[in-house]
Amino acid sequence: MAKKANKSASRDLFYFGKTRTDGDGTQKELLGGKGANLAEMTGMGLPVPPGFTITTEVCQRYYDEGRKTPSGLMDQIHVCVKLLEKELAKAFGDHRNPLLVSVRSGAAASMPGMMNTILNLGLTDQSVVGLANATGNERFAYDAYRRLINMFGDVVMGIDHEHFEEAFSQIKRKYKVQLDTDVPAKGLIELCDSYKQVYRKFTQQAFPQDPYRQLELSVCAVFASWMTPRAVRYREVENIRGLKGTAVNIQSMVYGNMGDDSGTGVAFTRNPSTGENKFYGEFLINAQGEDVVAGIRTPLPVDQMPKWNPGVHRQLLEIKNTLEAHYREMQDIEFTIERGTLFMLQTRTGKRTGSAAVKIACDLVREKLIDEKLALLRIPAGDLTQLLLPSFTSQAKNKAELLTRGLPASPGASVGTLAFTAEEAVARTRDGEAVLLVRKETSPEDIDGMHSAAGILTSTGGMTSHAAVVARGWGRCCVAGAGEIMIDEKARKLVVKGKTFTHKDTLSIDGATGEVMAGIVAKTEPKMSAEFLQVMKWSDKYRRMKVRTNADTPEDAARARDFGAEGIGLCRTEHMFFQEDRIAAMREMILAETVEHRKQALAKLLPFQRRDFEGIFKRMSGLPVTIRLLDPPLHEFLPHDAKSQKELAQSLGVTPAKIAARVQQLHEQNPMLGHRGCRLSVTYPEILEMQVTAIVQAAIACKAKKIDARPEIMIPLVGTASELAQLRELTSQTMDQVVTAKKFTGKLDILIGTMIEVPRAALTAAQVAEHADFFSFGTNDLTQLTFGFSRDDVNSFLPDYLSKEILPQDPFQSLDTAGVGQLVEMAVRGGRIAKAHLKCGICGEHGGDPASIQFCEKAGLDYVSCSPFRVPIARLAAAQAALRGAKH
Amino acid sequence: MAKKANKSASRDLFYFGKTRTDGDGTQKELLGGKGANLAEMTGMGLPVPPGFTITTEVCQRYYDEGRKTPSGLMDQIHVCVKLLEKELAKAFGDHRNPLLVSVRSGAAASMPGMMNTILNLGLTDQSVVGLANATGNERFAYDAYRRLINMFGDVVMGIDHEHFEEAFSQIKRKYKVQLDTDVPAKGLIELCDSYKQVYRKFTQQAFPQDPYRQLELSVCAVFASWMTPRAVRYREVENIRGLKGTAVNIQSMVYGNMGDDSGTGVAFTRNPSTGENKFYGEFLINAQGEDVVAGIRTPLPVDQMPKWNPGVHRQLLEIKNTLEAHYREMQDIEFTIERGTLFMLQTRTGKRTGSAAVKIACDLVREKLIDEKLALLRIPAGDLTQLLLPSFTSQAKNKAELLTRGLPASPGASVGTLAFTAEEAVARTRDGEAVLLVRKETSPEDIDGMHSAAGILTSTGGMTSHAAVVARGWGRCCVAGAGEIMIDEKARKLVVKGKTFTHKDTLSIDGATGEVMAGIVAKTEPKMSAEFLQVMKWSDKYRRMKVRTNADTPEDAARARDFGAEGIGLCRTEHMFFQEDRIAAMREMILAETVEHRKQALAKLLPFQRRDFEGIFKRMSGLPVTIRLLDPPLHEFLPHDAKSQKELAQSLGVTPAKIAARVQQLHEQNPMLGHRGCRLSVTYPEILEMQVTAIVQAAIACKAKKIDARPEIMIPLVGTASELAQLRELTSQTMDQVVTAKKFTGKLDILIGTMIEVPRAALTAAQVAEHADFFSFGTNDLTQLTFGFSRDDVNSFLPDYLSKEILPQDPFQSLDTAGVGQLVEMAVRGGRIAKAHLKCGICGEHGGDPASIQFCEKAGLDYVSCSPFRVPIARLAAAQAALRGAKH
Repeated sequence: MAKKANKSASRDLFYFGKTRTDGDGTQKELLGGKGANLAEMTGMGLPVPPGFTITTEVCQRYYDEGRKTPSGLMDQIHVCVKLLEKELAKAFGDHRNPLLVSVRSGAAASMPGMMNTILNLGLTDQSVVGLANATGNERFAYDAYRRLINMFGDVVMGIDHEHFEEAFSQIKRKYKVQLDTDVPAKGLIELCDSYKQVYRKFTQQAFPQDPYRQLELSVCAVFASWMTPRAVRYREVENIRGLKGTAVNIQSMVYGNMGDDSGTGVAFTRNPSTGENKFYGEFLINAQGEDVVAGIRTPLPVDQMPKWNPGVHRQLLEIKNTLEAHYREMQDIEFTIERGTLFMLQTRTGKRTGSAAVKIACDLVREKLIDEKLALLRIPAGDLTQLLLPSFTSQAKNKAELLTRGLPASPGASVGTLAFTAEEAVARTRDGEAVLLVRKETSPEDIDGMHSAAGILTSTGGMTSHAAVVARGWGRCCVAGAGEIMIDEKARKLVVKGKTFTHKDTLSIDGATGEVMAGIVAKTEPKMSAEFLQVMKWSDKYRRMKVRTNADTPEDAARARDFGAEGIGLCRTEHMFFQEDRIAAMREMILAETVEHRKQALAKLLPFQRRDFEGIFKRMSGLPVTIRLLDPPLHEFLPHDAKSQKELAQSLGVTPAKIAARVQQLHEQNPMLGHRGCRLSVTYPEILEMQVTAIVQAAIACKAKKIDARPEIMIPLVGTASELAQLRELTSQTMDQVVTAKKFTGKLDILIGTMIEVPRAALTAAQVAEHADFFSFGTNDLTQLTFGFSRDDVNSFLPDYLSKEILPQDPFQSLDTAGVGQLVEMAVRGGRIAKAHLKCGICGEHGGDPASIQFCEKAGLDYVSCSPFRVPIARLAAAQAALRGAKH
Repeated sequence: MAKKANKSASRDLFYFGKTRTDGDGTQKELLGGKGANLAEMTGMGLPVPPGFTITTEVCQRYYDEGRKTPSGLMDQIHVCVKLLEKELAKAFGDHRNPLLVSVRSGAAASMPGMMNTILNLGLTDQSVVGLANATGNERFAYDAYRRLINMFGDVVMGIDHEHFEEAFSQIKRKYKVQLDTDVPAKGLIELCDSYKQVYRKFTQQAFPQDPYRQLELSVCAVFASWMTPRAVRYREVENIRGLKGTAVNIQSMVYGNMGDDSGTGVAFTRNPSTGENKFYGEFLINAQGEDVVAGIRTPLPVDQMPKWNPGVHRQLLEIKNTLEAHYREMQDIEFTIERGTLFMLQTRTGKRTGSAAVKIACDLVREKLIDEKLALLRIPAGDLTQLLLPSFTSQAKNKAELLTRGLPASPGASVGTLAFTAEEAVARTRDGEAVLLVRKETSPEDIDGMHSAAGILTSTGGMTSHAAVVARGWGRCCVAGAGEIMIDEKARKLVVKGKTFTHKDTLSIDGATGEVMAGIVAKTEPKMSAEFLQVMKWSDKYRRMKVRTNADTPEDAARARDFGAEGIGLCRTEHMFFQEDRIAAMREMILAETVEHRKQALAKLLPFQRRDFEGIFKRMSGLPVTIRLLDPPLHEFLPHDAKSQKELAQSLGVTPAKIAARVQQLHEQNPMLGHRGCRLSVTYPEILEMQVTAIVQAAIACKAKKIDARPEIMIPLVGTASELAQLRELTSQTMDQVVTAKKFTGKLDILIGTMIEVPRAALTAAQVAEHADFFSFGTNDLTQLTFGFSRDDVNSFLPDYLSKEILPQDPFQSLDTAGVGQLVEMAVRGGRIAKAHLKCGICGEHGGDPASIQFCEKAGLDYVSCSPFRVPIARLAAAQAALRGAKH
């Protein structure tokens, strides 16, 4: 980017215009984002209304000097205004042809809570007459004046907007009109007087008639807005540090509402939905920017502009090319045509859909504007989801009846009739129906129903509730925690906002937004474009970390491998026990009263487990498969209603009371902190023995079939080195026994490692690592324990925490680097003290979140593991993280 | 202590005897504890059977050389044995007058899992004849031989003891006798042959007839026992590092069973129960040490010894004085009289009761043997409990029927008839009955009943279950988790080991041991001795840390102050809401549907809270009172049974269904990780406002009455700096409002701080401290979260963790310094980065545990806080910690 010679550290005001331009786009720290961009465009020779920017350093002086107008500032402003007056041949506050300006805040980072725009500044009782004269439009002039008084009163003096609204209503009643635009000039003149009275009433002062006083108050108000509690908290939460303050942009006004030769518009240099390289936007004749937003009149697409003003259209297309060549990126622009002359008011990087991002990035590489690396960095990794899942068409969604909004727990678009139990979902799906499974919350017992259903909708539970985690693992659409829905399972109906829906009714749910809509909403299926595959290829070229998947079935394993997974980072074994043919043996095992009985029941489960593992090893041949030993509390496997307990009692030949007693005995106050994970293996070593036997037998069977099985055994919930030492010993012994029994003479090389998910394991990682071949960070549980948050219960207060900005985001979605991340870093450091090349990965939900993946790169992890549908996202995010050059 | 000139680093064997003594008591590292002590006594000129010690360095060489007899060792042993032979005029393996020795292991630290003693080594088919001749006692000689074969076979060769038992039974059957001692010499000769056959059968070798071979095998077995899995794990768990190995002690045998002029005994130099300075012990004529332990014959008290052998008695009294003067400590000695000659076999520090420890320490100071500091270090702080609580007399306990054993949850001795509900306990206590409240587990709803009851007995729950924590806070006797007891609340009975006890029956429970006994067991009340008060005075002189108490009522506050508490470290506010007159308003608050309704209900609670605080401030005038804002989930305050819900519905004028729905809505999967602590204040700021208002109003009211109230407000469960920042702001605002409303013009100086109990708060302590005036470590919850253990559920696996030595102790009882402690240290360090003098204390249960208090000293905490009855313990433990000179 071109540098200017007259940059000066001591300069307080940076002018941009024909006379001279002091700044450029590199000076965001000093001029703020908006100011730097206005200078840049001016420097490029684009038609930008001239103005000047007061630097962030002046803001700092405002505070240093005790929240007073910094000394000498008004003199310097005077100099710049004079320059503007000269350039535009207008005069500030003039009663013939007045100079009018806008005042806007603008820090280096975009920041909610700071001051809004003030337009038309410079209008006074005197200059408004001048504006009317100069434009020959009295109505226009007084409309501008009343807008100034309103904005100034509201934004600078803190007068509640409704007081102005009231005054406006009175005038409309008086002139018997409905719309603001129908009030005649006379009415607007009266309105200005009413507004001035409102102003006086609430400030005890007259509306300032000195335009420089207007400017001084406005500039100070911008400075003051830097320290509003909301802005301060935003910076705190977003960890924005080291900024000096906000800049202030003062720019001469242009008007798109000066007649039919005027207009205003917004446009993208390429199509933001598809990425197609075609100028895309809309404009409105005889209107101001705010009118476009208000949506009262329908704007015209820009390709109809040639009919209205072909010269301006040509000029815009040229500017599009200039901007893209300059910024090497798709731009989002705002422009105004004042009496046939085009003015550029803004340019910034344009927002786009995931598909568009991919296409634009690839096109820009082809056009040699950017290289592969920059192309990768330009695509928001999380948006790739849109390319992989069905979605509702925007037309259909616009027409649909939105019933409520839950949490966007697992993306996708799903339509179905309602099923209120898992059994019902299974049965009706078998009969060919597409059903949505609707539950208060789901439990492992619902797993079959969840798998059958087209989509899952729950009324409680958060982003990492059972329903959400399982659904994401399968790529199944899920909306969770839709708290406004009241479910009556027995009556087979739900009520939302007073409307009732039964098992005969159809709903549509959008898992990417959390929307729940009535009836059938039309959707489109995804297609994998050539550009998508290109982006994946580039990603693999630049990333350092491997990408694995979390998968429990051969089907999921195969799907993930298609998406590019390089192994399984987390294969949960508990889901395998819920299938109909196994749950009986599992329950028998849990209810066993002697080790012998327990072993007998486990012996029944062994062949199932072995078969499951063989299937997965086959799909993942040549790639590592990390198998986590049984993790959930045994309680979860037992039936909790009297009927199921009775059935179980009959099948096992015991009394229902005995079953009920055992269920009661296994009940825990806090199952998350209870008898689960490796604690099960400590108290029931025979469970570990069965699972390890199944793994080793499956691996040996695969080797015989020339399948390259590479199991890794992961011991969950370890908190102390001695837990792992003892269980590792037992695992090794069991492995040896199987190898001896099978007379296997080949190489197995099965790694034994642990999940780091308990803070204590992270704190004592150097000791734990002595007994581990690898660490896999279970950041779901690690987040639960580090915060003391239960994923299942967090929704009772998390919304307040987010709205009060105590937390910047849900820590179950994006890794909390300051707390949880600190433990991860400690553990990696500690583990590698014991073993310099200890393999470390992440298998929590965060493994599919781009920001968390960036952290993993920095922490020096070897791989991330995520649900199959997020594998492409993780590949891209890992490449981006590597390109951002994190040190490790 | 005297040093010897001939200490040598290269010496492998250290001889002790008349000829020379190479080592002394300072050389525990090299000679082990036992070896060093034998050398020391010999050096003092006491009659110790001579012998020699093989150093720990030789053990190391055994491993360095691949678990083989270290080269040159047997030659050196030969030299020492020759010295012994010369000194005793006996010969090793001799067929006339054989030298016999014992072999014992002995490391620097006492260590379970290492090798047992072997006696009578040197006996062979040949020398046994010599022993029979020399002693003129054939039976004695063969009895010694059969013992050697048995011990050697068992300990050195790993032959199961039962095989020898079997052979012995056969002989007894053959000679038709019941007792071992009735088998005649002939039978024992036969038995030796049988034993040798057993030996051959299991080892495929003959019992070694070369005494040096016996010695070599035994010494190597001792070395090998250093690395048994159990010993290795013990060192790991106990963090015993840097030891070279075990020493081996080889000592000439003496016999107390050589006739009526022989005998053996054990004694304490002072009374170990009372501490009285009087020689105390017992002896058995014509017996070996093991016979005393076996308890077949009743020993005589030592003061009857003058009748038997006044010379030996006089000699023992002299030795008592010599030892006490030398060791400056009460000793536990073992001695043997062989044919009228006294031999000392052992001296070590004697175990004693808490009362004895206090008395002995004070007496030794008076006797100018030790100074105050050493006196303090000598008293096990935890044993002070015995001086403060009633206890069952040992005679009564010996006679009592022990039904089962639960956890010693809160010490004391309690006798009462059984009450099965809290209401019943309240009512029957009011009627003058002493009752034990028997519950499966207790909940906050039971609080009144628990307070009424003489003692509490639960069948589930651990050392930090609700019952245990509350009971300890009150000093109420409690046995928790007595799992063998089946409680039938409806039938008002319990069954234990097949016996049924109803509400009419009486049980006695010992909270210090966990014993549950049938009927009334007699007990004694405690008295505070002058020595106890002396020890407290010394403690206060030497400790650095302050000692506060955890107390929620004026009564507890007063009691704790009597025990020396210097303020309240944790005043829980939730117990205040359970009292009958308040719970209704509390429930109304929870069920409120609007902020207005909630505020109305809170307004009813305000006067109660204010009155509670005033009462506590009054009792703690001049001392700080840290008040924790509401902490438990609201769920805990609602009734859970249909009847109570109906009553509540009536009193509030709503439907029972609505109550049930709200209870259901508030239900949490993991309440420990749920909507509680400061999360309540974030979602319901009005609760915080009410509590802070009550605190400030109470403080102002006290000031008016010249009571020096010093409240500190503690915000619980903080995990992020922004939580604390926002709640601190709200607290300050509320404080200001009350001060303004009350027109109070004095000084309040109320600190606002937080509990550090969530790992994330410890990890980000530097940020959290910016908003905190103090940190108080809530190590109960911090332990739960750091381990991922629920206190309520941990008993399902903790016993296995302790028995398998995965954990050295219950981390809820004694602070886990490696994990939880690391977080505490990080937080103190982090907090003091932000504020160099940040006040830090501990208010978890660990604040009353001596080992944890030692850690607190090291971590640099300013105070510990514990339940009232543990305040004296904490005062002493804090002094000990300071004296041990931990750096901070």
